[in-house]
Amino acid sequence: MAKTLIPEATVKRLSLYLRCLERLREDGRKVVSSTDLSCHLQTRDAQVRKDLAYFGGFGKRGLGYEVEPLISELKSILGLDRTRKIALVGAGKLGLALVAYPGFKRRNFRISRVFDNAARKIGRLWEGVEIQDVELSDRVMKKEHIEIGIIATPGEDAQGVAERLAKAGVKAILNFAPTRISVSEPVIVKNVDLTLELENVSYHLNRADV
Amino acid sequence: MAKTLIPEATVKRLSLYLRCLERLREDGRKVVSSTDLSCHLQTRDAQVRKDLAYFGGFGKRGLGYEVEPLISELKSILGLDRTRKIALVGAGKLGLALVAYPGFKRRNFRISRVFDNAARKIGRLWEGVEIQDVELSDRVMKKEHIEIGIIATPGEDAQGVAERLAKAGVKAILNFAPTRISVSEPVIVKNVDLTLELENVSYHLNRADV
Repeated sequence: MAKTLIPEATVKRLSLYLRCLERLREDGRKVVSSTDLSCHLQTRDAQVRKDLAYFGGFGKRGLGYEVEPLISELKSILGLDRTRKIALVGAGKLGLALVAYPGFKRRNFRISRVFDNAARKIGRLWEGVEIQDVELSDRVMKKEHIEIGIIATPGEDAQGVAERLAKAGVKAILNFAPTRISVSEPVIVKNVDLTLELENVSYHLNRADV
Repeated sequence: MAKTLIPEATVKRLSLYLRCLERLREDGRKVVSSTDLSCHLQTRDAQVRKDLAYFGGFGKRGLGYEVEPLISELKSILGLDRTRKIALVGAGKLGLALVAYPGFKRRNFRISRVFDNAARKIGRLWEGVEIQDVELSDRVMKKEHIEIGIIATPGEDAQGVAERLAKAGVKAILNFAPTRISVSEPVIVKNVDLTLELENVSYHLNRADV
């Protein structure tokens, strides 16, 4: 398969199309138009067609897109058709909430290992997963070919944990700690900032107040 | 102040510029260029100047932007210079993690009320906030002029809670439940899906595997 350079915005929209399709499927729809796929997303229907065209199109002119096959295609493109093993470091409030988050399991993301450095937490079970000493993480992650690391530690520990995860061979890191981290390529790093959406809301409330 | 229509992408970047500026300030920088502000964000420096020009520019040609005043301006534009009162509904794992999330407090977002419908949770204290019966929420939120509601309930309860929040007068809702909600205008609704970033990571891992 040739690797075309796909715009990152397109990739992000694929996830939204997938959600939209799943909702339409729940409503019993079998075939949808690009307008159906665009309506909830403030995306023009031409953009939907262009996005999907990067991957081969899938639609039939004048007929639209078949819901079930397109869901399968999108899952395959996004790599959601196989289980991805994840290790989470930082069994605090947010970390444990992430382990229990139902949205991850639904998309085949499996947090199979949880690590922390606090003696009082180590050995405890959470959602069927034992909290292990972070000192064991390198060996365990390498052995089990963990692909993705999630960081949910306090901010000051995040960079050190990121470097440890990279050394242990993870290919991607999702950082929920309230600080930016960086590791060298080819490890993919995503910093998740839960405050961003609230700031966006605040902006709009502020404009309305003026 | 005239209300220009500002692109949503610009508004989102303001939050990123603010973070970038705060990091540069930590490094002791007093004055920065638009390139400094663009470098970490994969945004062209012309885009930075264009984004800031919507709000009056702030920079001086050939001199750049003064860090401290620009931080203040951005905070003011984003409405972060005043405390925003938030009520959270759903004192489960994710809800309680959000109440404790340090990033919110740092930006003046204060979760001052927490509601749940489970008798065993009601009356408990969490981060100094008492968990109250959701049946009281309408009265409490109206009385205290709560502006923002956060939903962290199970998916099946989210839509009902959203309608309740809207009736109680919140101006914006941030939904962390794993389902989309909608309420009628002018209430602003943001659905936060923690799985989106993981799907993006999965896409890139998948492309690398091919």
